[in-house]
Amino acid sequence: MNSSNLERPFLGQHCTSPYPRREIVLRGIWLVVENTLFRWSPRPFHAWRAWLLRCFGATISDLAKVVVFPTVTVHFPWKLILEPRSMLGPHVRVYNIAPIRLGYGANVSQFTHLCAGSHDYLQWRLPTTFGPIVVGANAWLGAEVFVGPGVEIGELAVVGARSVVIADLPARKVCVGHPCRPIKDRSEPA
Amino acid sequence: MNSSNLERPFLGQHCTSPYPRREIVLRGIWLVVENTLFRWSPRPFHAWRAWLLRCFGATISDLAKVVVFPTVTVHFPWKLILEPRSMLGPHVRVYNIAPIRLGYGANVSQFTHLCAGSHDYLQWRLPTTFGPIVVGANAWLGAEVFVGPGVEIGELAVVGARSVVIADLPARKVCVGHPCRPIKDRSEPA
Amino acid sequence: MNSSNLERPFLGQHCTSPYPRREIVLRGIWLVVENTLFRWSPRPFHAWRAWLLRCFGATISDLAKVVVFPTVTVHFPWKLILEPRSMLGPHVRVYNIAPIRLGYGANVSQFTHLCAGSHDYLQWRLPTTFGPIVVGANAWLGAEVFVGPGVEIGELAVVGARSVVIADLPARKVCVGHPCRPIKDRSEPA
Repeated sequence: MNSSNLERPFLGQHCTSPYPRREIVLRGIWLVVENTLFRWSPRPFHAWRAWLLRCFGATISDLAKVVVFPTVTVHFPWKLILEPRSMLGPHVRVYNIAPIRLGYGANVSQFTHLCAGSHDYLQWRLPTTFGPIVVGANAWLGAEVFVGPGVEIGELAVVGARSVVIADLPARKVCVGHPCRPIKDRSEPA
Repeated sequence: MNSSNLERPFLGQHCTSPYPRREIVLRGIWLVVENTLFRWSPRPFHAWRAWLLRCFGATISDLAKVVVFPTVTVHFPWKLILEPRSMLGPHVRVYNIAPIRLGYGANVSQFTHLCAGSHDYLQWRLPTTFGPIVVGANAWLGAEVFVGPGVEIGELAVVGARSVVIADLPARKVCVGHPCRPIKDRSEPA
Repeated sequence: MNSSNLERPFLGQHCTSPYPRREIVLRGIWLVVENTLFRWSPRPFHAWRAWLLRCFGATISDLAKVVVFPTVTVHFPWKLILEPRSMLGPHVRVYNIAPIRLGYGANVSQFTHLCAGSHDYLQWRLPTTFGPIVVGANAWLGAEVFVGPGVEIGELAVVGARSVVIADLPARKVCVGHPCRPIKDRSEPA
């Protein structure tokens, strides 16, 4: 008889990795690459880092047209889609256990956390849940924003620093707060 | 005559360390251990890290039944109590200058900060104040939560990502926000 | 014909560094010093770190009367003004692309981010904008506070942990929240 059968239930009990072995091994290799070739590369070498991400399966159609700072962390490169002219700024954390897509010209500022996963707390096992994140074309996320799973941010949206985005944001609005909400229109840039 | 006697008062004046020399020395040694044996240990070696914490005085009754990620930081191991099946996730900061206790099955997610101290700003000296933190049985704190001094979180509470918890939270509620407040009931897990 | 002329506009297009070459070179040198002599110095060597900052142009009238922790990051030392008895605590980020001044006896706690820049999102070019930050005499900023560009914090103000300060704060008030607002008076310290 297994001792855990005698225990009273606990949150996280019998929780197992939701990832296939192939993904775990690939991530192990990626971690080595990310913490060496990627992390130590000079700041202007954005295409080099984009190429490393693409080697690990990222969808980046034009390596020369994205900006990826050396301090970015990406969980699963093969679940990252960077459209041309998108940017991942300094220290951005891309926790893309579900796909995360940055649209054309989307800008994500320093220390922002894109978090595409959560847990189902209605089960003792606390299984991981997955929600893709889409940052719309030419949207700008300020510093230290948190974006939760399943969130879609509209094109040309502006998200204020430190905002906590746990629901979709409309296009062409300035949005701020915890929780983040639209507060005013945002005109077409000149 | 001491020059500081001539100064106009300033916040933090004559502030001294509130810790006995023995604690300061012990923390110095712990810092070396934490940044080497603890930090560099492979992720699955949770029992090893729990053992290191216990060597420095942590109360952990069953080393094999706690999860402590290698990126956790603990200020004073001797003021940490981990009940079985509790978890400190990646990059959790345990600023336990007062005791911090995780109850049975309590889960603390990545980048959460448990901060058991503050300062008394009603005195020029700005003396450190202490408030123990208790995370109730099977409570789940999401990513990047901040928990302030003196807070008690009820059993099976769920705290949303980035919440700022500066007052006690009741049991079996889902709580979110800044400041963090209960927003709905949380049913018993299945 | 340049290919970018054929592109549809994107946020950040034709964005160039707003800093003169001299400043970029100086920052390069500073980064080396900050990540070695500054970062590796023992915690009590506050005057040493203040001296390093002053070598790079910081305005610090009395090196022996400021506290600057070794884990602080300063973007442009030559845009930092530390009055006597001011303190930059552990892991404080001073993003001073515009001048940042700490008044006499001002205390800035761990992991707080002083962010003196933003971007003008009304232009496709997304040009950097600058706003000096002033922390008033004997003000105390708690842990993990965010202070945005152009903010002035009054003397003896108290700012709660994790607050997001995007507008000026009056003197002698306790202020908390996201956005941070005064909630009560703060009496003269005893």
